[in-house]
Amino acid sequence: MKKVLSIILILLTLVPLTKIQAEDGYDLWLRYKKISDKQLLANYRSSIKEVYLPNSDSPTIQIIKKELKIGLEGLLDKRINFTDKIDQNGTVLFVNIDNSDITLPKAINSKTQNLQEDGFLIEHTSLNNKQVILVVSKCDIGLLYGAFHFLKLIQTHHSLKEVSILENPKVEHRLLNHWDNLNRIVERGYAGFSIWQWHKLPGYVSPRYTDYARANASIGINGTVLTNVNADAFVLIPRYLKKVAAIADVLRPYGIKVYLTARFSAPMELDSLETADPLNEDVRKWWQEKVDEIYKYIPDFGGFLVKANSEGQPGPQDYNRSHAEGANMLAEALEEHGGIVMWRAFVYKSEESEDRAKQAYNEFTPLDGEFRDNVLVQVKNGPIDFQPREPFHPIFGAMPKTPLMMEFQITQEYLGLATHLVYLLKQYKECLQSDTYAKGKGSTVAKIIDGSLYQKNTSGMAGVSNIGTDRNWTGHPFAQANWYGFGRLAWDPYLSADEIAEEWLRMTFTNDRSFVKPVKKMMLSSREAAVNYMTPIGLHHIMGTGHHYGPGPWVSNLSRPEWNPVYYHQADKESLGFDRTTSGSNAVSQYHETVKEKFNNIDRCPEKLLLWFHHVDWDYEMDSGRTLWKELCYKYYKGVEMVRDVQATWQKMRTKIDKQRYEHVKSLLEIQEKEAIMWRNACVLYFQQFSEKPIPDHYKKPDKSLEYYKNLDFRYAPGNLRCE
Amino acid sequence: MKKVLSIILILLTLVPLTKIQAEDGYDLWLRYKKISDKQLLANYRSSIKEVYLPNSDSPTIQIIKKELKIGLEGLLDKRINFTDKIDQNGTVLFVNIDNSDITLPKAINSKTQNLQEDGFLIEHTSLNNKQVILVVSKCDIGLLYGAFHFLKLIQTHHSLKEVSILENPKVEHRLLNHWDNLNRIVERGYAGFSIWQWHKLPGYVSPRYTDYARANASIGINGTVLTNVNADAFVLIPRYLKKVAAIADVLRPYGIKVYLTARFSAPMELDSLETADPLNEDVRKWWQEKVDEIYKYIPDFGGFLVKANSEGQPGPQDYNRSHAEGANMLAEALEEHGGIVMWRAFVYKSEESEDRAKQAYNEFTPLDGEFRDNVLVQVKNGPIDFQPREPFHPIFGAMPKTPLMMEFQITQEYLGLATHLVYLLKQYKECLQSDTYAKGKGSTVAKIIDGSLYQKNTSGMAGVSNIGTDRNWTGHPFAQANWYGFGRLAWDPYLSADEIAEEWLRMTFTNDRSFVKPVKKMMLSSREAAVNYMTPIGLHHIMGTGHHYGPGPWVSNLSRPEWNPVYYHQADKESLGFDRTTSGSNAVSQYHETVKEKFNNIDRCPEKLLLWFHHVDWDYEMDSGRTLWKELCYKYYKGVEMVRDVQATWQKMRTKIDKQRYEHVKSLLEIQEKEAIMWRNACVLYFQQFSEKPIPDHYKKPDKSLEYYKNLDFRYAPGNLRCE
Repeated sequence: MKKVLSIILILLTLVPLTKIQAEDGYDLWLRYKKISDKQLLANYRSSIKEVYLPNSDSPTIQIIKKELKIGLEGLLDKRINFTDKIDQNGTVLFVNIDNSDITLPKAINSKTQNLQEDGFLIEHTSLNNKQVILVVSKCDIGLLYGAFHFLKLIQTHHSLKEVSILENPKVEHRLLNHWDNLNRIVERGYAGFSIWQWHKLPGYVSPRYTDYARANASIGINGTVLTNVNADAFVLIPRYLKKVAAIADVLRPYGIKVYLTARFSAPMELDSLETADPLNEDVRKWWQEKVDEIYKYIPDFGGFLVKANSEGQPGPQDYNRSHAEGANMLAEALEEHGGIVMWRAFVYKSEESEDRAKQAYNEFTPLDGEFRDNVLVQVKNGPIDFQPREPFHPIFGAMPKTPLMMEFQITQEYLGLATHLVYLLKQYKECLQSDTYAKGKGSTVAKIIDGSLYQKNTSGMAGVSNIGTDRNWTGHPFAQANWYGFGRLAWDPYLSADEIAEEWLRMTFTNDRSFVKPVKKMMLSSREAAVNYMTPIGLHHIMGTGHHYGPGPWVSNLSRPEWNPVYYHQADKESLGFDRTTSGSNAVSQYHETVKEKFNNIDRCPEKLLLWFHHVDWDYEMDSGRTLWKELCYKYYKGVEMVRDVQATWQKMRTKIDKQRYEHVKSLLEIQEKEAIMWRNACVLYFQQFSEKPIPDHYKKPDKSLEYYKNLDFRYAPGNLRCE
Repeated sequence: MKKVLSIILILLTLVPLTKIQAEDGYDLWLRYKKISDKQLLANYRSSIKEVYLPNSDSPTIQIIKKELKIGLEGLLDKRINFTDKIDQNGTVLFVNIDNSDITLPKAINSKTQNLQEDGFLIEHTSLNNKQVILVVSKCDIGLLYGAFHFLKLIQTHHSLKEVSILENPKVEHRLLNHWDNLNRIVERGYAGFSIWQWHKLPGYVSPRYTDYARANASIGINGTVLTNVNADAFVLIPRYLKKVAAIADVLRPYGIKVYLTARFSAPMELDSLETADPLNEDVRKWWQEKVDEIYKYIPDFGGFLVKANSEGQPGPQDYNRSHAEGANMLAEALEEHGGIVMWRAFVYKSEESEDRAKQAYNEFTPLDGEFRDNVLVQVKNGPIDFQPREPFHPIFGAMPKTPLMMEFQITQEYLGLATHLVYLLKQYKECLQSDTYAKGKGSTVAKIIDGSLYQKNTSGMAGVSNIGTDRNWTGHPFAQANWYGFGRLAWDPYLSADEIAEEWLRMTFTNDRSFVKPVKKMMLSSREAAVNYMTPIGLHHIMGTGHHYGPGPWVSNLSRPEWNPVYYHQADKESLGFDRTTSGSNAVSQYHETVKEKFNNIDRCPEKLLLWFHHVDWDYEMDSGRTLWKELCYKYYKGVEMVRDVQATWQKMRTKIDKQRYEHVKSLLEIQEKEAIMWRNACVLYFQQFSEKPIPDHYKKPDKSLEYYKNLDFRYAPGNLRCE
């Protein structure tokens, strides 16, 4: 007995004191905390006894092993054995059918016929008379995706009994775009510096690159553009290519390719060529040699993203060549290596008097069919620039012969930086679900992006990264959801914002329904809240100059007309809004007939886009029965109220999650409320000058004057640093 | 028995799986890992049964309680009870003698007579017939310092039996200077962005500010200048003062005051005054009102640090007023609030043809006695600018009537950024131990800094911070030692570089002698290594332009003569070095006669400073018997060898510490070796053009040409961003 007691004492010394665990958000959604539900834990432990992994020295298989070890040991709080035999129930097998001697049950084999590259199958079945779970793929990367999905099932408390899942990525190129400069300043970045430590590369390779790769692989991202679209040729010199190669080496086993932005004038800047004309032989030779050189350092280099002849960037038009001629030159150089060109359609000219919203369409649609096969044209979700709400871009559906790549913005340039809680999936889905009618009803943007509408053999979706050196990666704890959600949507554009929020919340915070349900509701309302307190009823581009932080509807002093907010809202004594109807700029005619007629008709045009397409009288009666002016006030005040609802919901969550993240979000919501009020007051007071109507009595009058808001100086708002 | 077994099983489930613990350096030297030595642990556990803290709602006392809880529970791995009775042996008492009813033993009481403000006493004694440890101070901050010291005794495995320590800070103002801009770019910062998140303040107060305060309080830092000496008046507007106040509120209970840099032209920039003339009544009124306003937000605001009429900064001389007149205007405004002015002596003029090394002395020494009592003149350790090696600044000892504050640079602007392992305490001590002979032999710089030589009633030491958003705070894991060491030296300038390294290593890594001994040796040699591969034998200011990264002895194209390296090394066919003797620029005459004669005489001048003071023939015979040219080669090659010795030592440490920090340092050492070779090759090849002598045969010849090194383009080396 004494002996036993001493054993107990020894064991007791092993019981650790509960240490203050810092929940700083670094782990993102890859948190593998022990399952708290006893019954559930018991079930998982019984269905996961050991893990079968192919004997392989593939780095990807090693990564799967490591991830499963951390993940399962964390979630199940028990040691996980890895085996190469199937000799007990509860074995989880990872099988790459292209190099495995395991004979799978017929039922499984037939299902594997539906597996595409990088797809995976997760099936509960019996094998050698043992109850097992099979994770099957045609390649190691597919198995990695399967492993993360398998862990997610446990993280989100899904039953593994009878589990039967087959997943294939619906989009081929699932990319992050980093607007990161070589000096580590991130353009429109609100979460610190660039995570790429160029100066110390390739000598010092930060472990953070590995965590970046894990996080992206876990959501299916398979490519990343390391550099800013406002490109710097310097990254193409050998000393920097060695640095790029060091990053590529870390990302490769996670199935992530690196891409760079190509500055069109690079041949002139790096090797003093006299021209960058894409039809000039020396120029073409220079790019071919440069590309060959890149592939010497990075054998699986993904290709180039190019912003040309846009906002001052050099491009083929400097030599009277078309975007197609520019893109094709680079595409030709990349082709033999399997690289691609992503050519951005975000263009507008200062000389051009045409409605800015129309210019990209006008320039690109005539080029449909002229691009080489390894060129994708990358189009922003809307025709202006990532505004809180825009109609879908008219190019979607108008270039049937060209693979169109979606460009969403994850970083919140126009949506409160990293200080506002705005769940962007609602914005993304709104665009993807839009019906272009290009091939009749049901021709959604999603079907164009995934290539199904025109049977494209390639497809892509890009998200402008919100990642920085902040400990939690994205600044706002909830901004992680936009990174996560973008990745999930790139994998499957048909997932709903709701289910993505649900799984993110469960993985990131807790499975407690009393947390998940209200907080998900809060997330789903957050984007509409931002639209209301910033740009309701189709208003757009009325933010402050340069930093784009805070309201600036009064700005009219910028050199280029289409840079001024007044150009966009067109407020006058009688009315408000940009007339893009057939009797106005006629932007509506860039849409398919069915859509055009809807947008063109003030009575059929969705009110959420009314002021985008119409110049509307202040007394115009809205669906609510209110006049436009009253509706405008209603929306701005409603936006602030919605933020307060979010705050109220969040305050009820205090006891349900860790203190650190709770307090962080709480503080940021207080900032958001103040800034929402600033937006509301400044905009209502400004537009009131034109409407000359009172703010309805039941609304609290602004306690500050319009002058006060005009005089606020936000010179150091982040994301807008221009540095030597 | 069954029951017992089940208990065992239950307990077993409590035994956690060993998780991969990330040692990312965030904890700095405040690591409270369980004492591994069983015997030692037992001793500590018996001498620390519970902790007596005064019942007090003082935030500082709460902080002490929290720190002791984390610290002792971590180190001793047992729960710590806090008590308000002395009823058992092994009670540790914290007593603020100014508000305590505990009657101390006579012996202790007599000792407390020697306690000064912020000092503390740690004594093992018997009280109420109990064996206790007393930590005594006259104020709560002193108790906080005592608490950290007490924890350090355990962290470094000191015996608590018979412990008897009395510590008083020897310097009054122990400050960090942050060269942080409001846009979060840190001038000469190599560890990421500024930790001050101005945009989100005061709404979001990062928990990191608290960890910053803990770390600084633990080494006795009691003030911090938040903003860059190249100052921005914008920080003085109310909206920003609220942000400053939020930081001050976090630092206050840790005994740390906040200071700001004052831009001399602020009255003109913020309120359109027509002048900033310090004798102009409106200007004086403006500053008085601004200061009063600051104290409304920050009742214990520390004061201003000012860089005036230096490198383009505005100042009193713009109005033909003296530095004293400028400083006194601000000092007068601060005086009633108890604030101080730290006026920098780092000045040199472009118009001035005089040897740059002489200018600060010439401008300031005539003003001795003209400064108000609450002004300290802040002087860099040497007369040029934080070079790897400089003689002590001649102002030290030349301004007996003025309190002189030391300015050391912790950030490694000229010593390899955050990529080289250079332990700077050797540099600091070299300066502090220098004998000025101002009041005869033994008039060391240290005695001037601590105020003892001239019985000053105030004193100060400032260190230019190397802190940034990098997870480990300082970029290089060993750069933490320079932050730590600066603080310790500011507390007691007479501590040795050796003992500071010893305690830092024990706290930061391990007490394992087989690690501490060799690694300490390696640290102590590291600064001389850097001097050797960068600027041996008194060479200085031969670095690359702007970023100051890498060698640039050939640079001669800068607009101002004293910005060009060629101005400093004066290399020609016959000889090398800057003649500052009586027959040269006569800078030697700024030193006390005894020192002057030593520096002035080529045979008595220390060889490590030879080329600082003398223009020396290439064939001059050095103490080693080598010619100057051969000695120069010897030193440059020796420097690289010393780095390789460091690498060899470090590689032996692989098994002795955690993988993450080991690998991090290893990678950085590889970078350092490459860069040391670059420095060596570039400099030897460059100076060889003048000496026209061969590199001695036994040295490996540079494999690259001088042209190669001249053509390297480091435009994105960090720390030099100039941003809009």
